[in-house]
Amino acid sequence: MDTRERLIESTRELLWERGYVGTSPKAIQHRSGAGQGSMYHHFTGKPDLALAAMTRSAQEMRDSAEAAFTGPGTALQRVSAYLRRERDALKGCPVGRLTQDPDVMADPVLRKPVEETFAWLADRLAGLLAEAREDGELDAALDPAATAAALAAVVQGGYVLARAAGRPDAYAAAVEGALGLLTRPKGD
Amino acid sequence: MDTRERLIESTRELLWERGYVGTSPKAIQHRSGAGQGSMYHHFTGKPDLALAAMTRSAQEMRDSAEAAFTGPGTALQRVSAYLRRERDALKGCPVGRLTQDPDVMADPVLRKPVEETFAWLADRLAGLLAEAREDGELDAALDPAATAAALAAVVQGGYVLARAAGRPDAYAAAVEGALGLLTRPKGD
Repeated sequence: MDTRERLIESTRELLWERGYVGTSPKAIQHRSGAGQGSMYHHFTGKPDLALAAMTRSAQEMRDSAEAAFTGPGTALQRVSAYLRRERDALKGCPVGRLTQDPDVMADPVLRKPVEETFAWLADRLAGLLAEAREDGELDAALDPAATAAALAAVVQGGYVLARAAGRPDAYAAAVEGALGLLTRPKGD
Repeated sequence: MDTRERLIESTRELLWERGYVGTSPKAIQHRSGAGQGSMYHHFTGKPDLALAAMTRSAQEMRDSAEAAFTGPGTALQRVSAYLRRERDALKGCPVGRLTQDPDVMADPVLRKPVEETFAWLADRLAGLLAEAREDGELDAALDPAATAAALAAVVQGGYVLARAAGRPDAYAAAVEGALGLLTRPKGD
């Protein structure tokens, strides 16, 4: 791995573990093994490097969701596969955790990949739920966009509950509760 | 407000805005107007003061939830009132945000109020959902504990989505989606 790559990957890890406010240029240099001069050769500063790291984490989150969304099964089965896919629930979401960072939220450039990723996710889930409704898999009374928002929230909130409890199964319980609500027999 | 009180309230605000990692003793002294000597007269250090602040925030979160849980209406109406009650969605949850703080999660003493608050909330919601099920308000096929976990996750994840979007209505959309799933006609 070249230095630029090591800097990005180290920043991704640190942002995930400690957030933007808790990640110093010195910590990035220490973890990546790159010197200060090298860091400022490749990036203009911490915001620039953080943006590269966040953009990559956001892309990975999309790719991994997209793999579930385009996998086998009906639309509802693919939504379920997305919710249930293996996650390190105690680590939390590398993109969602950035919403708790005041310095990220206050900077429109840094906030953009976070905002876009969740907008994309909500849109993608709503599309699949609309498909499920057309196929008679999902109750026609349910609004795809609002239901999609609820499911995206369950994932993000599931991480919060898992970390609060110190147990990954708190994430699984939230997801199973949501799927119970989503897939129970239609009321029509 | 006396100095001890000002220190606790200032720490609560800073923890809410910037988290534990992002809150320095100096920032607490600056916001509270208390000197260093005064701070260490009342508290042994940042962890001790943070614990007092977190314990109070956790108690307020319980009190405000309990007000909805014991309000008017059926069990399901009280759960809905809890989800819909007025919140500053863009500020996020003062207790939930602490789960993103590595130094809080790594310290069993600091993590305790966070863990206990969410355990209490899940238990309380599960009790109300069990009551709703007994009264025929809720589908008998739904598991109260898993459904409660899903609803608690929707609240926490709703904050994440609202902050990501920079719009409080993203919280409302997630809650309405969850209530749509919860209150649609029973399938039996």
